[in-house]
Amino acid sequence: MARDVRIEMRAIGVIHTDVADDEVARRRREMVSTIEVWPAYRDGLLGIEGYSHLFVLFALDRAAPPTHLTAHPRGDTSQPAQGVFAARGRNHPNGLGLAVVELLAVDGARLTVRKLDAYDGTPLLDLKPYDSYDVVEAPRVPDWWRRRALTPRGDLR
Amino acid sequence: MARDVRIEMRAIGVIHTDVADDEVARRRREMVSTIEVWPAYRDGLLGIEGYSHLFVLFALDRAAPPTHLTAHPRGDTSQPAQGVFAARGRNHPNGLGLAVVELLAVDGARLTVRKLDAYDGTPLLDLKPYDSYDVVEAPRVPDWWRRRALTPRGDLR
Repeated sequence: MARDVRIEMRAIGVIHTDVADDEVARRRREMVSTIEVWPAYRDGLLGIEGYSHLFVLFALDRAAPPTHLTAHPRGDTSQPAQGVFAARGRNHPNGLGLAVVELLAVDGARLTVRKLDAYDGTPLLDLKPYDSYDVVEAPRVPDWWRRRALTPRGDLR
Repeated sequence: MARDVRIEMRAIGVIHTDVADDEVARRRREMVSTIEVWPAYRDGLLGIEGYSHLFVLFALDRAAPPTHLTAHPRGDTSQPAQGVFAARGRNHPNGLGLAVVELLAVDGARLTVRKLDAYDGTPLLDLKPYDSYDVVEAPRVPDWWRRRALTPRGDLR
């Protein structure tokens, strides 16, 4: 097994938002964004309005390559350090963003969505519909995650 | 906005399964796989056992580039043609696989998971924990999707 497998992706569109980069983390639960799919890919949207929710895959093109594989979630040293794959931060080896968003409107090749925690200008890589098989009833999460979700500082990730 | 944005990803591991490629679609709801994370990334798994479910992102390295942006879901011409972004096929412009899997066991850098519809030898790109914010109550899906899910031929995607 050759271990140095490289895969090249191409942007298929771009994400627009009025929210400033440094406000995205705080407002990620309610912010509204527009996804602009480039004309060459527009036909791929046929029927997408039949879904209430989508997965959006995007490139974290402003994230520096991570220097550590463990970190305190959101820098909170009162919480135990976690591996990067055990949290939803931007510090994974591949800069792949994943968000579950609510689809509010479709206008040609522009989708209006809620809860997309991507910065303005972020390259879009893929869209996939969210369906009943993606629903997990009562997923188990670590204690630190649940404790954090219950604090006034709000949910973590 | 430069439209030809290219992003390079590197495999961080590999997916193993005993299920033959042409059986994966049929058995995707129950099949068990092993994810081998390469040693350089092992520390990133710290704490992952605290979650019951994960998102697995992988490279669809055996999918041919799509020639059409619309298709009848799973080739069933009794169903309306859909854009590729309105279905979960392997025919998206970027060959990015996404699966919600159940985490059964963690043994060092090897994870045993259920419901990972990737072929044996598939390059692993990322792991992200599934948490309560990923649960959508009663997502809306198109009529064709629901009709298909109710037939004896089984669910679609």
